[in-house]
Amino acid sequence: MSTMPTIHDIYRARPNVYRHLRPTPLYQYSGLSDLVQAEIHLKHENHQPVGAFKVRGGLNLVANLNPDHKKGGLFTASTGNHGQSIAFAARAYNVKATIAVPVGANQGKVAAMQGLGAEVLFHGEDFDTARQWISEVAKEKGGTFVGPTDEPLIHGVGTYGLEILEDLPDVECIIVPVGAGSGVCGTAIVAKSINPAIKIIGVQSTQAPTQQLSWQQGRAVESSMKTVAEGLATRIPFANTQAIMAKYLDDFVLVEDTALEEAVRLLLTHCHNLVEEAGAASLAAALQIKDQLRDKKVVLVISGGNLSTERLVEIIQ
Amino acid sequence: MSTMPTIHDIYRARPNVYRHLRPTPLYQYSGLSDLVQAEIHLKHENHQPVGAFKVRGGLNLVANLNPDHKKGGLFTASTGNHGQSIAFAARAYNVKATIAVPVGANQGKVAAMQGLGAEVLFHGEDFDTARQWISEVAKEKGGTFVGPTDEPLIHGVGTYGLEILEDLPDVECIIVPVGAGSGVCGTAIVAKSINPAIKIIGVQSTQAPTQQLSWQQGRAVESSMKTVAEGLATRIPFANTQAIMAKYLDDFVLVEDTALEEAVRLLLTHCHNLVEEAGAASLAAALQIKDQLRDKKVVLVISGGNLSTERLVEIIQ
Repeated sequence: MSTMPTIHDIYRARPNVYRHLRPTPLYQYSGLSDLVQAEIHLKHENHQPVGAFKVRGGLNLVANLNPDHKKGGLFTASTGNHGQSIAFAARAYNVKATIAVPVGANQGKVAAMQGLGAEVLFHGEDFDTARQWISEVAKEKGGTFVGPTDEPLIHGVGTYGLEILEDLPDVECIIVPVGAGSGVCGTAIVAKSINPAIKIIGVQSTQAPTQQLSWQQGRAVESSMKTVAEGLATRIPFANTQAIMAKYLDDFVLVEDTALEEAVRLLLTHCHNLVEEAGAASLAAALQIKDQLRDKKVVLVISGGNLSTERLVEIIQ
Repeated sequence: MSTMPTIHDIYRARPNVYRHLRPTPLYQYSGLSDLVQAEIHLKHENHQPVGAFKVRGGLNLVANLNPDHKKGGLFTASTGNHGQSIAFAARAYNVKATIAVPVGANQGKVAAMQGLGAEVLFHGEDFDTARQWISEVAKEKGGTFVGPTDEPLIHGVGTYGLEILEDLPDVECIIVPVGAGSGVCGTAIVAKSINPAIKIIGVQSTQAPTQQLSWQQGRAVESSMKTVAEGLATRIPFANTQAIMAKYLDDFVLVEDTALEEAVRLLLTHCHNLVEEAGAASLAAALQIKDQLRDKKVVLVISGGNLSTERLVEIIQ
């Protein structure tokens, strides 16, 4: 079993990330602050080149591969954002990427992966099915399988946590959407290492609560997965991110899919940012637990912005 | 008459801008590159804290005010983005800002100005009417009137031009939306000073062509102003930006409002960015003149993202 990542690992990932990316903005918004009755800052990971935080992890992972691993190519599964991250990083290092997506995956995300030079294969009904299949394909073809919570990914995405602490050292609470858990784990490791008083709160959808139930019960729980938020659509928990969350998370809340959609609308109106349902989960959670946040300095991680125009139309009508 | 701004003025503005802002991203998009058949990079000024490039100018202007000017407060007129810029900068320096907007101005932009602590006054039918009125108010009250093309604004916004050259030194063409002209002038001064071979192309709407007609005819031309793009809605040309455009602009194209709306949709679908009509003008122009751009390295300035949800609904339906 691997040891748990530390803030040192995240510092070591920084140069790999900043070789290709700049820090993303952390902006305070008066309209949202009024709504939540707290000082609300958004961490704009939706401003990344592939529209989501995961690109930080992909760049760190590929930077750490040895030549043999690069030669066989990378194989992974994704509902979209992780795949774009791996495609982006693979292109930066001239490595071939093959990405399995569930049948019916977000077309814009698929086109983006292909535009970045990745081969996209459709397989299975959901992320976990596609993932188990592509890991077998990688073995057959002698390639490198990349799982969604591989540690170099956690180290890479943790760099946005460092940026939050650099920009707002007095932050009191950080709320992070949880899919596989790399984002919330990277953030929690950084925040708790620098100031253990910072509250770290994870969010999933009530329609896909597997990580939340597993965290709450302290054991792996599989559950139904029917959320509209593909970035939160996990059916099976991950041992390594569960271990980190068990150690560091202060709370883990569930929000209804309808609250995610309302949060997408609020972010359009108050911040003029297009945010996908998963990315808006942090705002939905803040509104749900506003009594606990009153007058605090709160950072909401806007983890991604890759909302299809079709979904946008459904949500704003 | 003041001398024309130089790249040195823009370098002198840099520290005033970076005291409060980070560089914005320049990203290449494969989907848009396929559409235009050129290498398309977007300069994401829609990622600024107030959603538009103008905040760079406001910060430089306020940084250069003497204590007397600060004491009397700032008075300006705006359709929205310039006003948010002045409000943001005034707050950063603890100066009072009073902003006149046309009756019926974008509510989201008005709320944003108020959220930044500015007093907003509604006056007249359009930007130019509000501007002439508030300049009188400023005189009566002993405050400082800020015009939309005051030179410190051009110096400040020119810093995004420097960022473009730093990120993509081999850029061959930059397309910039034109309202009052500060953005295109700052960009042109930088680009032509570093590499005179870079083509600089301005864009206005066919429904508000006053700056384009004045540039083309070499004299001040007033014209009708009916565009949906409030960021391009100029009825009266400005002498100082016209002089700079006369010297530096290679071309100045007009696009239909319907093409602006199509460009907003394309940016949503291909880049998952919310962009206002004026901000999308550079993409609309690139599609219109794609024969001239084929295989070139092209930067499209996405000048702002402050689209109201009501307009968004109209545009995507």
